[in-house]
Amino acid sequence: MIPTITAFESSPDRGRGLARDMRVRWALEEVGQPYDVRLVSFAAMKAPAHLARHPFGQIPTYEDGELVLFESGGIILHLAERHAGLLPADPDARARAVSWMFAALNTVEPPIVELGMAGILERDKPWYEARRPMLEAHVRTRLDQLSARLGDAEWLDGAFSAADLLMVTVLRRLGASGLLPAYPSLGAYIARGEARPAYQRAFAAQLAVFEASQAT
Amino acid sequence: MIPTITAFESSPDRGRGLARDMRVRWALEEVGQPYDVRLVSFAAMKAPAHLARHPFGQIPTYEDGELVLFESGGIILHLAERHAGLLPADPDARARAVSWMFAALNTVEPPIVELGMAGILERDKPWYEARRPMLEAHVRTRLDQLSARLGDAEWLDGAFSAADLLMVTVLRRLGASGLLPAYPSLGAYIARGEARPAYQRAFAAQLAVFEASQAT
Repeated sequence: MIPTITAFESSPDRGRGLARDMRVRWALEEVGQPYDVRLVSFAAMKAPAHLARHPFGQIPTYEDGELVLFESGGIILHLAERHAGLLPADPDARARAVSWMFAALNTVEPPIVELGMAGILERDKPWYEARRPMLEAHVRTRLDQLSARLGDAEWLDGAFSAADLLMVTVLRRLGASGLLPAYPSLGAYIARGEARPAYQRAFAAQLAVFEASQAT
Repeated sequence: MIPTITAFESSPDRGRGLARDMRVRWALEEVGQPYDVRLVSFAAMKAPAHLARHPFGQIPTYEDGELVLFESGGIILHLAERHAGLLPADPDARARAVSWMFAALNTVEPPIVELGMAGILERDKPWYEARRPMLEAHVRTRLDQLSARLGDAEWLDGAFSAADLLMVTVLRRLGASGLLPAYPSLGAYIARGEARPAYQRAFAAQLAVFEASQAT
């Protein structure tokens, strides 16, 4: 039996790979684990059957036999612990990579999501233009620190890991912000992630779902 | 040799246990691991020596011999993997608890921090009162979902785990928001966490640091 993940029936990102199922698809491709996808509508995401799988009514979820997981970070760490290729074998390096996973999701992503959501929910508000420089400054602080730490390295800490997978997907959310061109080393880092064959297979799979949703 | 964590020399929360070293202290107390604390000033947090430990210039960090970790979620998962008492032994239950750790930090905490930071950074702005209901609504959505899932259970998924430790510390940040009284089951959940002897030892330790900083 192969695991089943959930994804948007029609992703609001229009197939740009910014929805969080992309992270899990990428991780599954990195470890060579085939998977099924159950598509959910926005209405179905808030219905009892899906809330039983995901208490916060989001995607992705992960089902493998009796095991049901939610939250992309948790799903990816589960995959990384059961398959080679997403975390280093050395215990100290592994602990550092896991810390970087949390950093991607708890320190770098929140100001990026806050900036993005303001653009969606508050663009027509009178304060939007006044607040935007502050939101951008919060993101730039994180990008300054991240690029300082990354330096000339290829990945965050040694070989490619689940931490890079998460960090690249987090940074990709800035694509439309105009902030990334000031950070060429981060741009190259994102490009290294996107060049991985596993990324490309995952990206094509989620794009195919969006394109099929438009054709019907 | 015992591990060393970092904490604020003078915590902006005035000893209320809301700084992120509290989480790590609590976890260390739960597993019975003695620890040292190195206090850092706001200036020292942004200096090279600390940035080498924590790329984003925050607390806490964790040092144990050659191993240096940052990010409270990563430190606590490291402790949970090396000591009994913070994660279930059953592999599926363990994976679910880890997903709840990510949910606490990536799904529940961000809107709570956003509400709290608006109160600090934007209270004097003309839009503050107009935006506050939206920020509160985002938090309430998560509290509705969390209390629906928790139901009458004592903890999130079976026995107390690192997921509860993180979720309780995340929810405690709402103490001054006025939002918690509408969720008595979450209030009782927080109180169960705070009643644990390990929590109380950790709380006393961080409060003693703040009180000493005021005495000098």
